[in-house]
Amino acid sequence: MDTELQEIKSVLHKMGQKALNASRTLASLQSEAKNDILKQMADAIDSASPNILEANAKDLEAGRKAGLSAAMLDRLRLDKKRVKEMSDGLRYVASLADPVGRVLSETTRPNGLKIKKVSVPLGVIGIIYESRPNVTVDAAGLCLKAGNAVILRGGSEAFNSNLILADCMNKAGIAAGLPDGAVQLVAYTDRRAVNVLLKMDDCISLIIPRGGEGLIRTVVEQSTIPVIKHYKGVCHLYVDADCDYNAALSIVTNAKVQRPSACNALETLLIDVKALPEFAKPFIAAMKKHGVELRGDERFCQWDGTIKPADEDDYYTEYLDLVLAVKVVDSVEAAIAHINQYGSKHSDGIISSQPERVEKFMMEVDSATVYHNASTRFTDGSEFGMGAEIGISTDKLHARGPMGLEELTSYKYLIFGDGQIRA
Amino acid sequence: MDTELQEIKSVLHKMGQKALNASRTLASLQSEAKNDILKQMADAIDSASPNILEANAKDLEAGRKAGLSAAMLDRLRLDKKRVKEMSDGLRYVASLADPVGRVLSETTRPNGLKIKKVSVPLGVIGIIYESRPNVTVDAAGLCLKAGNAVILRGGSEAFNSNLILADCMNKAGIAAGLPDGAVQLVAYTDRRAVNVLLKMDDCISLIIPRGGEGLIRTVVEQSTIPVIKHYKGVCHLYVDADCDYNAALSIVTNAKVQRPSACNALETLLIDVKALPEFAKPFIAAMKKHGVELRGDERFCQWDGTIKPADEDDYYTEYLDLVLAVKVVDSVEAAIAHINQYGSKHSDGIISSQPERVEKFMMEVDSATVYHNASTRFTDGSEFGMGAEIGISTDKLHARGPMGLEELTSYKYLIFGDGQIRA
Repeated sequence: MDTELQEIKSVLHKMGQKALNASRTLASLQSEAKNDILKQMADAIDSASPNILEANAKDLEAGRKAGLSAAMLDRLRLDKKRVKEMSDGLRYVASLADPVGRVLSETTRPNGLKIKKVSVPLGVIGIIYESRPNVTVDAAGLCLKAGNAVILRGGSEAFNSNLILADCMNKAGIAAGLPDGAVQLVAYTDRRAVNVLLKMDDCISLIIPRGGEGLIRTVVEQSTIPVIKHYKGVCHLYVDADCDYNAALSIVTNAKVQRPSACNALETLLIDVKALPEFAKPFIAAMKKHGVELRGDERFCQWDGTIKPADEDDYYTEYLDLVLAVKVVDSVEAAIAHINQYGSKHSDGIISSQPERVEKFMMEVDSATVYHNASTRFTDGSEFGMGAEIGISTDKLHARGPMGLEELTSYKYLIFGDGQIRA
Repeated sequence: MDTELQEIKSVLHKMGQKALNASRTLASLQSEAKNDILKQMADAIDSASPNILEANAKDLEAGRKAGLSAAMLDRLRLDKKRVKEMSDGLRYVASLADPVGRVLSETTRPNGLKIKKVSVPLGVIGIIYESRPNVTVDAAGLCLKAGNAVILRGGSEAFNSNLILADCMNKAGIAAGLPDGAVQLVAYTDRRAVNVLLKMDDCISLIIPRGGEGLIRTVVEQSTIPVIKHYKGVCHLYVDADCDYNAALSIVTNAKVQRPSACNALETLLIDVKALPEFAKPFIAAMKKHGVELRGDERFCQWDGTIKPADEDDYYTEYLDLVLAVKVVDSVEAAIAHINQYGSKHSDGIISSQPERVEKFMMEVDSATVYHNASTRFTDGSEFGMGAEIGISTDKLHARGPMGLEELTSYKYLIFGDGQIRA
């Protein structure tokens, strides 16, 4: 094995042990202590704003030279407003309820044993992400509030920005009582560092990858640590024949155009064949008005000569753009079957005023969030009342759908006896 | 790629799709329907008891020829009583509350959206296990009750026994309304079949391996599907200086000798140095009486010339036998540090009547179950009031500690609106 890889392994394992030790101290910190640390970090970021922008300018300059796309450069770019949003984010997390120490259940057994199930931190969380430097601050803040140490591995293109942000948080945090090792940034841009990290199951409890499907697949294939995944959001709405067509048009339009780049935006519209006569024309007109390119199946294309035919791949695609696949279905059963086959278990909804079909759809669509008569765009931690969100899970284990602070905790059982032994 | 592996892949992928389809039907079955299926399966196993014993005899014969150890042959062996225990197990699962459809939370947002979080089945669960044929029945029963389809991959040494048990359950189950594909047994004894199964993340939601640490490590390394692990139970008790020494002796003895082969049995005893004068002699006498071999550190060995010295490895070892490692510590902090370093996050306890030390121990020991003044042997689904248990998790994600029916479910959010769109 080459010596560089040896060094990466050795350094990362030391970071892991340091994080594990820090996590034990963090787990015992009171809410006020954690909140004070978060606020001190926020102030430090505000004070360092000019230096942060300077470091970010270096990343942008390197990115331009490396030929990053305009969209990637935009994700990488910080300005005064974005820096302020990060520090305000930390202050907001400080204001939220502590997810640690909740009594989840409490029972007394016939033998007198009192069993208390209480929420505890997960331990050490690894975050693997791409270009956005704000993840460095947002993820660290949420992990800390939930009593977890965090190991951050950001994209190499944001290296200087991430470094100064982590440094800022650490200096201010440690001065306020944060254990050293609670927030650590992997300083290797070498991709092999990620592979090493993903095998450190002796000290890391959870990996959260944030980025495109390719990144997430690689993480899942490599990791021996549990991973919570957000693959993609191929979200559907189904317009039933019995519905308020004005509401349907408003919901569909909102889900598609209000922020097409979001994972909870609409990607495929399913229309009941009996809804077409009343719904097709106003819907096509509305989409044209908003500049949405439609890709329809054969039956839908008959309604307008300008609609592009959809192929099989379109129904699996997360466009994240002003493009919408459309399919005509014969029943709610067909709509459910389409969603369960082509969807991504993210956010899907029915627009209907027929109770049996609504009930069937809500029960049988196998997605994290299932909507009745509302836009899929509401799948979001703050819209759900969670305060903040570390991500949205398309998994079924541990956390499903929007993940807030509670989803960054585990639990343990405390059992109180007075000498009980097992017979 | 060789044609045999190609065939395994093709057959297993078809099984996976069939299981996924069956899981959708299962998810909608009412409790009474599931309970009736479980009872019919139980009756079928009773009726087929002679045939089951005949198939088992073939496995035992082959096992003897292959030179399996006496302990392995015992795990493999079925008799009338063990068959009856399996069928009664299914009847008991039928009598338990349905874990599906529980309303976990319910909120109405300021915009009027009503958000209901309800428990739903996980989908398809893969169980990978070794020689015990009862796992075939127990795991299938629990998975079904929680609305999940199951793919079973038992040890090749139990092949004939597992085949007839699965066949019995399927025939009776399908006649009673079980969807075809809900209970499937992998009929390949080829080890590569496990590797194929572990990559089928498009249809399997969860893998539960049941067996030794080696099996579990291999599963974790290969799997792209979430795995819930039970590595081992290196369980500790800490005898504080302030405690009821009679109770301490009774608890320690119970935890070590009542069933030493269980994962929740005691493996290392930590004794506060100030407890030694009163506790050491009666403890050593009791262990001698029960035939327990002690392995002590230097300070403990001074109390009896016959005690074997423990080495570093002893403190990491799950003996599952009448052997006990002993270490003298100077404080509750030292006890906690030892457990968090050498333990397996399973079951650990303190015997003490000093409230601050109890509190510190309960909070800082990072294990699934932490005991005060009780035997670690209580870590068990039925002792916890869960009814039945699919296993014990030493993980922190999704489920920790004893796992019952509720731990075999996920959840989804049902959102009811009246036209809400996002601003």
